Amino acid sequence: MIERIQAAAIDEADALAAFRERFLIADETIYMDGNSLGRLPVATIERLRAVVEDEWGAGLVGSWSAWVELAGAIGDRIAETIVGAGPGEVVLADSTTVNIYKAASAALEARPDARAVVTDSHNFPTDRYVLEGLCAARGLELRLVDVDPVNGPEPDDIARACGDGHVGLVLLSHVDFRSSALADMPAITAVAHRSGAVMLWDLSHSVGALSVDLEGSGAELAVGCTYKYLNAGPGAPAFIYARRAFQHLGAHQPIWGWFGQRNQFEMGPGYLPAKGIGAWVSGTPAVLGMAAVQEGVELLAAAGIERLRAKSMRLTDLVVDLFDDRLAPLGFRLGSPRAASRRGGHVALAHPLAWRLCQALIDRHHVVPDFRPPDVLRFGPAAAYTRFVDVWDGVDRLRQAVESGHWRDYAEGPARVT
Amino acid sequence: MIERIQAAAIDEADALAAFRERFLIADETIYMDGNSLGRLPVATIERLRAVVEDEWGAGLVGSWSAWVELAGAIGDRIAETIVGAGPGEVVLADSTTVNIYKAASAALEARPDARAVVTDSHNFPTDRYVLEGLCAARGLELRLVDVDPVNGPEPDDIARACGDGHVGLVLLSHVDFRSSALADMPAITAVAHRSGAVMLWDLSHSVGALSVDLEGSGAELAVGCTYKYLNAGPGAPAFIYARRAFQHLGAHQPIWGWFGQRNQFEMGPGYLPAKGIGAWVSGTPAVLGMAAVQEGVELLAAAGIERLRAKSMRLTDLVVDLFDDRLAPLGFRLGSPRAASRRGGHVALAHPLAWRLCQALIDRHHVVPDFRPPDVLRFGPAAAYTRFVDVWDGVDRLRQAVESGHWRDYAEGPARVT
Repeated sequence: MIERIQAAAIDEADALAAFRERFLIADETIYMDGNSLGRLPVATIERLRAVVEDEWGAGLVGSWSAWVELAGAIGDRIAETIVGAGPGEVVLADSTTVNIYKAASAALEARPDARAVVTDSHNFPTDRYVLEGLCAARGLELRLVDVDPVNGPEPDDIARACGDGHVGLVLLSHVDFRSSALADMPAITAVAHRSGAVMLWDLSHSVGALSVDLEGSGAELAVGCTYKYLNAGPGAPAFIYARRAFQHLGAHQPIWGWFGQRNQFEMGPGYLPAKGIGAWVSGTPAVLGMAAVQEGVELLAAAGIERLRAKSMRLTDLVVDLFDDRLAPLGFRLGSPRAASRRGGHVALAHPLAWRLCQALIDRHHVVPDFRPPDVLRFGPAAAYTRFVDVWDGVDRLRQAVESGHWRDYAEGPARVT
Repeated sequence: MIERIQAAAIDEADALAAFRERFLIADETIYMDGNSLGRLPVATIERLRAVVEDEWGAGLVGSWSAWVELAGAIGDRIAETIVGAGPGEVVLADSTTVNIYKAASAALEARPDARAVVTDSHNFPTDRYVLEGLCAARGLELRLVDVDPVNGPEPDDIARACGDGHVGLVLLSHVDFRSSALADMPAITAVAHRSGAVMLWDLSHSVGALSVDLEGSGAELAVGCTYKYLNAGPGAPAFIYARRAFQHLGAHQPIWGWFGQRNQFEMGPGYLPAKGIGAWVSGTPAVLGMAAVQEGVELLAAAGIERLRAKSMRLTDLVVDLFDDRLAPLGFRLGSPRAASRRGGHVALAHPLAWRLCQALIDRHHVVPDFRPPDVLRFGPAAAYTRFVDVWDGVDRLRQAVESGHWRDYAEGPARVT
């Protein structure tokens, strides 16, 4: 049995331990949901105050001369420090959902003869829904590939789905939102390309948790979320990646707007897309959210994505080890790959009472995981601010939650849960 | 000649004068650009601090149970207090650009036999560009109707453009971004409907400046911006209106996402749109921006949109009277309708040196108007915080800017200007 003192010893030696102090920690709650909504960096408080009072309040419309540069400048920093892309390949814009729509539409413009689109049946709902809408509008077939629910999509799954050569686009999540399975980006991308499809990766559950190599993946397109491991706050703008070579093909994203226009303030008679990644922006960007993204990205850049990944693997390994010790005997099943190298930043713990245990954990045991249907508790110990003792305490309290029977006070779910 | 003391006397009697104190006024700059970026309400400072520190920082993911209600609740308040719509007809989402795309796409789904789309050649760039993109993707004709540049679109202009019965959608701005011309919503909507087209109004330059009667207009769809007269800050989320009867037709907005899904957190296998206006939301909404919209809307609701419109008409009338006195002799031309009832909340002052005068006014005379190509200075004295003496001083300093010759220090433009 792993004891708490062992977890405390790892914390003592943790080179990233001091980064916890860069976050607002308001109480003793054990937060295991950084994979859903990351914590608030302390620097973001002052930054947002300055954007609101100094830049908006005092600077007024004149501040746009600085704000207009943020989407591209922050995109370049995400590219350089976190997702392995080049300058001019990443930009902040809109929500992840809208960016999937834009990227998928551009991919299909680049593949006008496509008859089908592929994703997996376990992919995050918004990914599946966006493709369903696009396919309905264009008369395309949506192929929802069945994949192993724990280990996620394998190259062979995608090869089979694309085998007839009619697939124009493959959209997959780099890390599965439920199981945390980490997909083999270059291998799957190569399979998609062999069948003639464009590859679009959703990095929402991997960006900031591990080092992404978009350049090496060969993929044309990617999108990602900033309010999880990038700690940019609820509803902060997402980002979109378009490989330079794909940009040069000239496929358009479909939402032509004034912020994607070359020489925007000439307000000319026709749409002339900006050169480069700027053409993937549509309307006026959310300035407060962008400022928060910038703080979140710089914090992670200071910690170093490789160091964060190394710590994250140890944190999730500890969840798995504690699962073996304490949870498996209580009827839990590991819903994530056993090897850290095959996982993202969270671990799925499956149990028939998961919904009721989640409520009891939050209300009675002061641990915040989250629930994903049908039976998964997600434990997401974000490396930037989570201690190994937090993981120990969190799993131990989950054991207590089962044994205490507090879960009997909660109705069968799921009702609405976030 | 109107003297400053007369403007001061109007301020003395202004029932809305005290609302100026509800805004952060950082210095003596005369701000005439509330039509581009509204001022910061004082209450918004504390609200955003609370959202950031208390709700995100301390409340973490649990705060989503409140945040998830904001888009609809604030939409209902905009509907009730500002745009004359019913509950369940307005929701916050995305940018104005993305909302135009969604609304226009839904309109074209409702008119599958349409061969053309109509807007006017003076409409705001993003409106024209979105339609250009949609028409390019669908093989439709984009008809850019030439209208009077000062008085804006008339019913007859639209009747001629729609005469052949092939038009599926008419998109116009309620108030023209350059001239401030106020369109006759019910008359133009009736013309569009007679030819079988769906009517979509862009309220960006009217919402918060005057009372909009969406219900009485007969229009199916509208969008609007919140960072102008609603004072919600740079890049705050826009809103979308869909008349209940149009919602019942079942035409889909094209970006199907998890926030538009019925029973969102069941994460079911297929997209089932939410009942009602919720189906017009796509991805995760920008929470900070929504909170700022709520503060801006409640401030305007407290002032009363009819009282704001009455004051706004007097403010812009004063601009026109001072123009006659002081600017017309200097080569200025009135770029807006002369009758207040035909104008929105700003006045267009045209002059061949407009670009250079704009720079000189900002740098040397501490007046902030804005410039719109080719030759327009916009004076937007937002009623919630602008004094009549501000208008007097602003116009007088514009006269000084011409006479001082400071504009000679600035190069010919336009360069980038916001």
